[in-house]
Amino acid sequence: MSCVFCDIVAGHEAASMLFDDERTITFLDHRPVTPGHMLVVPRRHAAFLADLDPEDGAQLFRVGMRGAAALRTSSLRCEGVNFHLADGEVAGQEVFHVHLHVLPRFTGDGFGLRFPPDYRIRERAELDEVAAAVREGWS
Amino acid sequence: MSCVFCDIVAGHEAASMLFDDERTITFLDHRPVTPGHMLVVPRRHAAFLADLDPEDGAQLFRVGMRGAAALRTSSLRCEGVNFHLADGEVAGQEVFHVHLHVLPRFTGDGFGLRFPPDYRIRERAELDEVAAAVREGWS
Repeated sequence: MSCVFCDIVAGHEAASMLFDDERTITFLDHRPVTPGHMLVVPRRHAAFLADLDPEDGAQLFRVGMRGAAALRTSSLRCEGVNFHLADGEVAGQEVFHVHLHVLPRFTGDGFGLRFPPDYRIRERAELDEVAAAVREGWS
Repeated sequence: MSCVFCDIVAGHEAASMLFDDERTITFLDHRPVTPGHMLVVPRRHAAFLADLDPEDGAQLFRVGMRGAAALRTSSLRCEGVNFHLADGEVAGQEVFHVHLHVLPRFTGDGFGLRFPPDYRIRERAELDEVAAAVREGWS
């Protein structure tokens, strides 16, 4: 099974590199939402969050924070930052090697979230019922 | 300055709690995108990523992974998961205490991303120029 991010980690595929350490590499998304949109990627292949070493996950966030600071310090337009991660095809995952998107935001950048039609504040009783279901799954 | 997430951490404001540990608490978003949409929040107040202890950030991701696993194991609809974090008002931040959204996704849930009109793959030369600007900001 070939994996384009494993190929980038191995140096067999080109990328516009930003940072690397023992656990992670960071490079620009080749289809950026905004200029500076980067991907923080674990060196070790993990298709989904369920396959990811939690310490690799922890480092994705630490490096994401450094990437966010770099964007804000850089000459690029950056008035805010989003982190985004898609786990599973229905969640928008396109490359099946875990990656954390870190993207600079600015007024009028054209990026945003689309919410469901019934998006609204819920009653406590309804929330508590859902919470009980989530806690059942929590190990 | 009052902070609703600090009030939840202190137990002075109600929330549908899911998990807590030394660094973080996790509860349901009261305006969920999908049922089970949770927020992982550092106990220690940090308005922005720039104010956040990187070890608190690392723990947000670890707990987010556990939350994602809980959602997938639970009785709720969950075919995929998104992590999302907004740093700054232009990025969609509404509560100025860092929080990681963890939300279950399923076919037809009505949530999605809105992309800018000029969203497309970029030439390596253009990406490399942007990468140089980001690396300038990287400390």
